[in-house]
Amino acid sequence: MKVAIAGAGAMGSRFGFMLHEAGEDVILIDEWQEHIDAIRENGLHVEKDGVSYQVDIPIFQPKEVTETKDLIIMFTKSMYLENMLQNIAEIIGPKTKILCLLNGVGHESILQQYVPPENIIMGVTILTSKLTGPGKISFAGGGLTEIQNFVEQEDAKNSTLEIVSVLQRAGLDVEYSEDVMYSIWRKACVNGAMNATCALLDCNLAELESVQPSEAIIRSIVREFVDVAKDRGTVLDEDEIVEYIITSSKAVGHHYPSMHQDLVQNHRLTEIDFLNGAVARMAKEQQKEAPVNTLITQLVHAKEELLQAK
Amino acid sequence: MKVAIAGAGAMGSRFGFMLHEAGEDVILIDEWQEHIDAIRENGLHVEKDGVSYQVDIPIFQPKEVTETKDLIIMFTKSMYLENMLQNIAEIIGPKTKILCLLNGVGHESILQQYVPPENIIMGVTILTSKLTGPGKISFAGGGLTEIQNFVEQEDAKNSTLEIVSVLQRAGLDVEYSEDVMYSIWRKACVNGAMNATCALLDCNLAELESVQPSEAIIRSIVREFVDVAKDRGTVLDEDEIVEYIITSSKAVGHHYPSMHQDLVQNHRLTEIDFLNGAVARMAKEQQKEAPVNTLITQLVHAKEELLQAK
Repeated sequence: MKVAIAGAGAMGSRFGFMLHEAGEDVILIDEWQEHIDAIRENGLHVEKDGVSYQVDIPIFQPKEVTETKDLIIMFTKSMYLENMLQNIAEIIGPKTKILCLLNGVGHESILQQYVPPENIIMGVTILTSKLTGPGKISFAGGGLTEIQNFVEQEDAKNSTLEIVSVLQRAGLDVEYSEDVMYSIWRKACVNGAMNATCALLDCNLAELESVQPSEAIIRSIVREFVDVAKDRGTVLDEDEIVEYIITSSKAVGHHYPSMHQDLVQNHRLTEIDFLNGAVARMAKEQQKEAPVNTLITQLVHAKEELLQAK
Repeated sequence: MKVAIAGAGAMGSRFGFMLHEAGEDVILIDEWQEHIDAIRENGLHVEKDGVSYQVDIPIFQPKEVTETKDLIIMFTKSMYLENMLQNIAEIIGPKTKILCLLNGVGHESILQQYVPPENIIMGVTILTSKLTGPGKISFAGGGLTEIQNFVEQEDAKNSTLEIVSVLQRAGLDVEYSEDVMYSIWRKACVNGAMNATCALLDCNLAELESVQPSEAIIRSIVREFVDVAKDRGTVLDEDEIVEYIITSSKAVGHHYPSMHQDLVQNHRLTEIDFLNGAVARMAKEQQKEAPVNTLITQLVHAKEELLQAK
């Protein structure tokens, strides 16, 4: 299968590496020239469960690619999805399937502007991976990835099942989901409650969980996610999610969520517009209010500006 | 007139000094032993418009005072008002007037538990003053102080007018107000929009004003203040206040509001429960929601805990 990974950071490179090792015809696409140069010179360097690999995988700038692909796996940061889709237009043919594995919610409305809905596959993964330098990634352990065709059609489902098989053959723990939007929303909800809050308060998950107003803050964020998701056909369980967030925050302890790493530690722009910001936007579209997520989004954007995040 | 200043910090000491210099029988009351010791040893040291004064004013711990006063001016931090009222119970006689010049809103409900309503005088001042060390304050310039009796009664008004005269004779620019609650709410609104936001985002007024989401954040905070105040009989003008906040933030530029100084710079507890927190609490009492001010209050309390503020 001709596969392109659009956005070959830590996660994209992990998927690209696994598919390449399984014999698929894989290319990586990324905009970071230093990363491209390193991979072209020395191959992609992978630390997988403590074992090192050095693999030759072709990598290109978005505008350098021309050959139509069977499958494109989107792994950009959320805010760069649209730009990537514009720049790789040449490799999206009428039968090209686009698998979206980005964090957050609301990507489907961007995807539909560039891809027919029957070619869109939505997904969510709990896998993790680290970019340890230009051309270098490191990962360990496994974790489930769920995918499902965006529109309910026999054809679309069959294509998705075929992609499930390809990914499974590459050693990835992938399942066809009957309700992937539930899993996408639930993960976004968890990230939405913790990511921005830790970034704004400059604390890790255990610290946030330890303060007295913690549960009230988490619940007020989650409640608006649940409300907006419900209007869009996805029913989430507020109590179950709040309970899960509190329990898992205690468990993972001293982990700083990615938005803290991006914003506070590295002064980078955040994915807030596809987490809390998406809920604020969708609520507005639904003629509702989501004041808590609106304020959190505004505060994070304010902090991005103050820190001159890029 | 026998006057006690309950809470002899920067502002309390300024008022105490002015009244003492005008010949009133003034005592200071405070809990900070180092401050008390310094004043007892060397007098109160005052820098007024660049000129130094060293003045002997009696100063006591709250529980050391016993003689009933004609007037007690409350100048504690908001969160210590109740404790102070409990500890100076002996000097509050049936005719003692209590003038409350604290920042924030909602103090009247605490005052009424310790003082008959006809003896309560509410006030607001735009004067400032700095505590430069134990026993030392510094201030310059002037500014209006407005006061009004809490209940509309001929007697109460006459007593208040008498107090206006005493304060004016001491060189303070004090006016009797026909609607002091308007001025109190308006000031609280301005503080509520800027103080917590600058503390949470770790920025000064000019920086906050410069970021793109600034006006939306300010407006969403102010709107809830206006709404709650209206239900309590005080009509504020949302647009006028938002405009004023933006203009004045530009003007004062690199000033860090007091809550930033307290929380971020000195890791002290904040007055949030009498600004944004008061609006959250009053909205609840009015069976309404104030989600923006509720979240801001929770975030500030979370930050107090994380910074182990005292």
